[in-house]
Amino acid sequence: MSADTNDQLALYRDSIDNIDAALVFMLAERFKITQAVGAYKAEQGLPPADPGRETRQVERLRRLAADAKLDPEFSEKFLRFIIDEVIRHHEQLRA
Amino acid sequence: MSADTNDQLALYRDSIDNIDAALVFMLAERFKITQAVGAYKAEQGLPPADPGRETRQVERLRRLAADAKLDPEFSEKFLRFIIDEVIRHHEQLRA
Repeated sequence: MSADTNDQLALYRDSIDNIDAALVFMLAERFKITQAVGAYKAEQGLPPADPGRETRQVERLRRLAADAKLDPEFSEKFLRFIIDEVIRHHEQLRA
Repeated sequence: MSADTNDQLALYRDSIDNIDAALVFMLAERFKITQAVGAYKAEQGLPPADPGRETRQVERLRRLAADAKLDPEFSEKFLRFIIDEVIRHHEQLRA
C-alpha cells in the first residue's frame, strides 16, 4: 500500500469514526428518553407497548430514509434493532 | 389518559422522533462513505476486510459508549449491525 493510498483510506476512516461517535452519543440520548418514557408509563399505569405508535414510526422513518437516499428496508430494520434494545432495558427494570 | 399525560408523552416522542431523523441522515452519510471505501479498495486492489481496523473500531466505540453512559456491549452490537449492512452493500456491488 503506497503512502497516498494510506492517506485516502485514512481520510475516509476519520469521517466514519466521526460519524460513529455522533451516532453513539445520539443513541445514548435516545435511550435516556426511552428510559424516562418507561418510568413515566409505569407511573401513569399506561401499557408499555403502543402498536399504533410503532407503525407511525416505521412509516415516518421509511419516508425520511428515502429522502436521505438510504434503503427504507434498512431504516425499518434499524428501528426494530433499537426498539428491541429498549424492550430489553424495560425488562431489566422490571426484573 | 388525561390531556396532561398525553402532553408529556407527546413531548418525549417528539424528542425521540428528532433523534431518529438525525440517526437516519447520519447513517445515510456513513453508508455513502463506506460505498466510496468499497469502490476505492476494489480500484486499488486492497482486501475488502481489515480485521485490525474492526478491532480498533470496537475498542474505540466501547470507550465512547462508556463516556456517553451507553452500554458498551450495545455499542459493539450496534457496530456489528452496521458492518453487516456494509458487507451486504459490498456483496450487492459485486453481484
